[in-house]
Amino acid sequence: MTRHTKAQSIQAIILAAGASSRFKTGRTKLVEKICGRSMVLYPTDIFVNLNIPTVMVVGFQKDILEEVVKEEFGNKVTFIHQQEQRGTGHAIQCTRDSWHADTILVINGDMPLVTQENIEKLIKKHHDNDATISFATAHHCDPEAMYGRVIQGDDSIKIIEAKDFEGDLSEQCCINAGIYLIKRSFLENYLDKLQPSAVTKEWYITDLINIASAHKLTVQTVAVPFDRIRGVNDFKELWAAEQIKKSEIIQHWMSNGVRFAVAHNVQIDWNVTIESGTSIGSGAQLLGNTKIGKDCAIEAFTCLKNAIIGNRTTVYANSVIEKSEIGADCFVGPFSFIHGNSTLNNNATIGSFVEVNRSEIGAFSKAKHLSYLGDTTVGQKVALGAGLVTCNYDGINKHKTIIKDNAFIGGNNTIVAPVVIDESAITAAGSTITENVPAHALAIGRARQINKEGYADKVRAKQTIKPLASAMTEALKTTYESQQ
Amino acid sequence: MTRHTKAQSIQAIILAAGASSRFKTGRTKLVEKICGRSMVLYPTDIFVNLNIPTVMVVGFQKDILEEVVKEEFGNKVTFIHQQEQRGTGHAIQCTRDSWHADTILVINGDMPLVTQENIEKLIKKHHDNDATISFATAHHCDPEAMYGRVIQGDDSIKIIEAKDFEGDLSEQCCINAGIYLIKRSFLENYLDKLQPSAVTKEWYITDLINIASAHKLTVQTVAVPFDRIRGVNDFKELWAAEQIKKSEIIQHWMSNGVRFAVAHNVQIDWNVTIESGTSIGSGAQLLGNTKIGKDCAIEAFTCLKNAIIGNRTTVYANSVIEKSEIGADCFVGPFSFIHGNSTLNNNATIGSFVEVNRSEIGAFSKAKHLSYLGDTTVGQKVALGAGLVTCNYDGINKHKTIIKDNAFIGGNNTIVAPVVIDESAITAAGSTITENVPAHALAIGRARQINKEGYADKVRAKQTIKPLASAMTEALKTTYESQQ
Amino acid sequence: MTRHTKAQSIQAIILAAGASSRFKTGRTKLVEKICGRSMVLYPTDIFVNLNIPTVMVVGFQKDILEEVVKEEFGNKVTFIHQQEQRGTGHAIQCTRDSWHADTILVINGDMPLVTQENIEKLIKKHHDNDATISFATAHHCDPEAMYGRVIQGDDSIKIIEAKDFEGDLSEQCCINAGIYLIKRSFLENYLDKLQPSAVTKEWYITDLINIASAHKLTVQTVAVPFDRIRGVNDFKELWAAEQIKKSEIIQHWMSNGVRFAVAHNVQIDWNVTIESGTSIGSGAQLLGNTKIGKDCAIEAFTCLKNAIIGNRTTVYANSVIEKSEIGADCFVGPFSFIHGNSTLNNNATIGSFVEVNRSEIGAFSKAKHLSYLGDTTVGQKVALGAGLVTCNYDGINKHKTIIKDNAFIGGNNTIVAPVVIDESAITAAGSTITENVPAHALAIGRARQINKEGYADKVRAKQTIKPLASAMTEALKTTYESQQ
Repeated sequence: MTRHTKAQSIQAIILAAGASSRFKTGRTKLVEKICGRSMVLYPTDIFVNLNIPTVMVVGFQKDILEEVVKEEFGNKVTFIHQQEQRGTGHAIQCTRDSWHADTILVINGDMPLVTQENIEKLIKKHHDNDATISFATAHHCDPEAMYGRVIQGDDSIKIIEAKDFEGDLSEQCCINAGIYLIKRSFLENYLDKLQPSAVTKEWYITDLINIASAHKLTVQTVAVPFDRIRGVNDFKELWAAEQIKKSEIIQHWMSNGVRFAVAHNVQIDWNVTIESGTSIGSGAQLLGNTKIGKDCAIEAFTCLKNAIIGNRTTVYANSVIEKSEIGADCFVGPFSFIHGNSTLNNNATIGSFVEVNRSEIGAFSKAKHLSYLGDTTVGQKVALGAGLVTCNYDGINKHKTIIKDNAFIGGNNTIVAPVVIDESAITAAGSTITENVPAHALAIGRARQINKEGYADKVRAKQTIKPLASAMTEALKTTYESQQ
Repeated sequence: MTRHTKAQSIQAIILAAGASSRFKTGRTKLVEKICGRSMVLYPTDIFVNLNIPTVMVVGFQKDILEEVVKEEFGNKVTFIHQQEQRGTGHAIQCTRDSWHADTILVINGDMPLVTQENIEKLIKKHHDNDATISFATAHHCDPEAMYGRVIQGDDSIKIIEAKDFEGDLSEQCCINAGIYLIKRSFLENYLDKLQPSAVTKEWYITDLINIASAHKLTVQTVAVPFDRIRGVNDFKELWAAEQIKKSEIIQHWMSNGVRFAVAHNVQIDWNVTIESGTSIGSGAQLLGNTKIGKDCAIEAFTCLKNAIIGNRTTVYANSVIEKSEIGADCFVGPFSFIHGNSTLNNNATIGSFVEVNRSEIGAFSKAKHLSYLGDTTVGQKVALGAGLVTCNYDGINKHKTIIKDNAFIGGNNTIVAPVVIDESAITAAGSTITENVPAHALAIGRARQINKEGYADKVRAKQTIKPLASAMTEALKTTYESQQ
Repeated sequence: MTRHTKAQSIQAIILAAGASSRFKTGRTKLVEKICGRSMVLYPTDIFVNLNIPTVMVVGFQKDILEEVVKEEFGNKVTFIHQQEQRGTGHAIQCTRDSWHADTILVINGDMPLVTQENIEKLIKKHHDNDATISFATAHHCDPEAMYGRVIQGDDSIKIIEAKDFEGDLSEQCCINAGIYLIKRSFLENYLDKLQPSAVTKEWYITDLINIASAHKLTVQTVAVPFDRIRGVNDFKELWAAEQIKKSEIIQHWMSNGVRFAVAHNVQIDWNVTIESGTSIGSGAQLLGNTKIGKDCAIEAFTCLKNAIIGNRTTVYANSVIEKSEIGADCFVGPFSFIHGNSTLNNNATIGSFVEVNRSEIGAFSKAKHLSYLGDTTVGQKVALGAGLVTCNYDGINKHKTIIKDNAFIGGNNTIVAPVVIDESAITAAGSTITENVPAHALAIGRARQINKEGYADKVRAKQTIKPLASAMTEALKTTYESQQ
């Protein structure tokens, strides 16, 4: 098909200059994301993929739009600036200097569901019939939908914009989808002849169809399902389009052996990959370039964003993993937060209420409860006790903690970086570690326990007498100091 | 319309005395909430808004019901007690002393989806036709639905209760919605003439229609979409009604420039407000009087209840904010819990596994990891290290912690309230702070670290010999004490 | 019915030998779970319940399948091994030695939605008509659905497998559901006469119908709704079947007085029970044998797996409870993680970022913030301060912590097991507890606080000069040691 297309000499013009006022965000709608991808990229992708030279007409917030398109397609798309918003006909006019192919395809930029098959079918029918103009139509009966209506007579065809239409819109269900193929020669001869609408003062590309029909030139229509050509003009329409896109993505992964527990709850981006045998829990957020291996279990309410998950790894409920890589056979969560380019090697365990940030956890090492690991490198087979805090930040700089193979960190430790705990070392529970611990050493950094018999009752008595002061605290201070 | 309505002299009677047995909760269904609001308040609101004097007939759990209505509408609604449950006709009878308007509107209290437009249209048609009785009908074909069926002849109209109906209910799709306008004069003349049903021994208001029709008085029907007049008799019907209400609320905010990531997952109460440019993540719970500013990002699985969120603030996934106010440009979560009338000033950051309770966090201050802040006032530009615990409770009383501007709290600190850490002070990592720290002072409250070379191996050897005792712990005790 | 069935002498054969290739998991689909129960168990349950002797023909991964069936039904089901996959006709052939009843019922194992009523109706009609073969049909118009098509003539009936069908499948909407009742005598006479398909080389049970019809024997069809006989051949069909099953389960509990906040988000297993007056939050995961009492509130994003929840207990959002029992009037969450056969007695409170593992919490005791309780027994009315860590693991063995009635544990304590804190004892905030604390004693295990006036500025000055070293940390070490 690609070669055939080239032979016929086609170029594409994507209309992307509009102001997106119905979104009410002050931003161009074309970079609003559908399944994690700016919507303008979906139709653009088709032309890039078919090697069709593509011009995008930009206007409103053109810098933002161009940046998004360049990030994905580099310089495969050329931009032309429409200075004033004077209608689709005027937008084409702005591209005149770029015309070089025999056939010029024009498409709205806000049609994220159109497929390559739709475009190929349109091109084929256009060429097969040697049409002057071809355009896509769809059946849609909503009188409030602002699509141009296609009126076909025995020997004529025309498009009337919805706002110019007189009569009952609900009876005009054949709509103009917004994809046109036009012979360049026709465009060169007739584009200047367009007249602005009396109502809106804009030039409409659709008038070209009326002109072609009046001149008895061949006008070809190609019916496409409405769902494929839905435009997106506000957040309600975006929601509908995203539902369809997401449903297609999920069904694709289902067909490849992935189990989704409550599929309609899941959020999944178009660029995510999941291998077979894996199950995805209710509500899971699978975002960005997340890649999930085989036979994994990703439980409910997990958020994975640009996360790489190895085979057979379990991510328990309510975990967040961002921009990090988890090895094979790991256990994460529930309630883990792993981010900042962190790495878990195979068979590592990160448990509940544990945050891992800019850190690496070695194979078979475990941090199971209530810990903060920042800028830390943990070796293999290390046991990190509950309540560990690495103090990686001194208010100005960040420092590194290194804990080597087979070390054992007692409960509720405070580790003040930079520090190295060497292999097979042990730290006592409750310690604050400020200095390096040699290999095989035991480090203790805590006070000795003293029991004051009967003092609990005295503390309570004082609290009752002086309810507004911190009686207990004061009692503790006194008793502690008195025995020093 | 309001003035017109008054001119015509209308009063409303809301039927709210029923026993809600199909809910099986032992509670009156009328205070069950739909999008966060007791269902009886929705129709009541319409009459209050139209300045129509309103009487509510109460019976079952009347005190609970009255309290809920008074809380929202004060004394704008009058209550009349129906002592026995003897049917809708009897309920009207109980209100006789309150009659003063020309027209009496009667409505069931369990119709949360009816709109002001529906009511206004009904009133207008009643007056325009100078009807004796008008009532709303809807088209609904479910033979199991227990609505009265409206039977219209050439010259007559009557309503037959579903349980009294003989014949095929599935062929009787015109149902009685349960909203009536009745001339007071007719009511005064004929209400006493109602006969109890042979089946249920109850008096039905619907018999009045039969009487009026038999007397060739004008009976007017007004068709209303079924979705607007759905009754709510069990949790399945409540769920259906809430879906519709929620869909309307979400579409309203979408139209105002709010992005919903997986809209059908979101829970949103009717009183919530969201400004444009904000995105709402999958599953978000937006409850009570929550107000969210412009250009915020509220991520997935967040619960906001009576929360106020400033402009451009991000609430990361899995966070809970209750009855608290977050400033502009703040970062919260993932896994934050902010509650108890807490306040975050602009540009503050509360991070993962951090609870903030009855506290204020100053501008640009940060508590990013694993902390509990209770009854604490934190100044500006304060850095709170990971693992901070404020000990605000001594078993009897709560005490306050004050941490002033530019202070730096080291990791894993324990702060025993009441205590003041003055501005620009620093506390060492691992400290327990029991006394005030002066401005610019360094506070240290921890033991010195000791490394015992080679002791780790001895500890491990003992553990292997005595697996059932806490070998390591004892070893630690010994070694520690021996060197004191 | 049961007795009637027995009188007629019926036995059932469940076909469960297939290879499940379209699931692409490498596992037999028949143990994939629908609402928490392996799908093959649903139809099997009907025959066990009707006391119909049942044979299951197994092949692919038969050991896994047999184990699952035996776990639920013990030896009520007999297994026969089909060594080679040679079609449904061949599968019946393998069971020949087990035939003993007058009528043999054959059913596919992948029909999880079929009901006992469907089966009873089929049996009744078969017997009432003294049919040679009866089978269930359904109306389904999807040309891509691979069900056999039922072709009925004036005097004949036959089934053509979809893949053997020539013509337009979309016009053949009467499909073969895959449930047959066959006279044993017919089976004995004709089963050997089946010929393998020219296309697939497999023997089809459906050819028996063609044979019976050709011999003018009575062939009876019984129409069943398609939703009841849906087969499950890939994850998309599993998802559809699970949606229907889940909807039935949720509607059942709604009818029993349970409120579901966003019902379609909830995941609920078939074995879960919920009492009236309880509300279930959006997205809740109610899994395994979870049992929830009366008037509970289970908030959004909670995961309960094999959890028992007492009456009037609240589980706040984002909590995980596994294999544990929560008493009445408890408060759990938000962000609690309770697992490992833990128990909360009545009126206990477990709060945010608290993990309870293999532990018991006494009545009226509270652990409200940031704690890890492992292998711990907590008595009544115990207050556990925020940041508590029980050190239950020494790297080799697990040890127990016992905290008795009325004890008060200060904030940020580290408790090194094995240890007993006796009743009414108090531990000071920031303590590491390594030894038993007697009743009514006050235990202190922390260092005294020292304030170094003006040192904070010196620390900051050093950090600025030496940004790459841990200036502050070193300063702290120096200052601390210098004053020892």
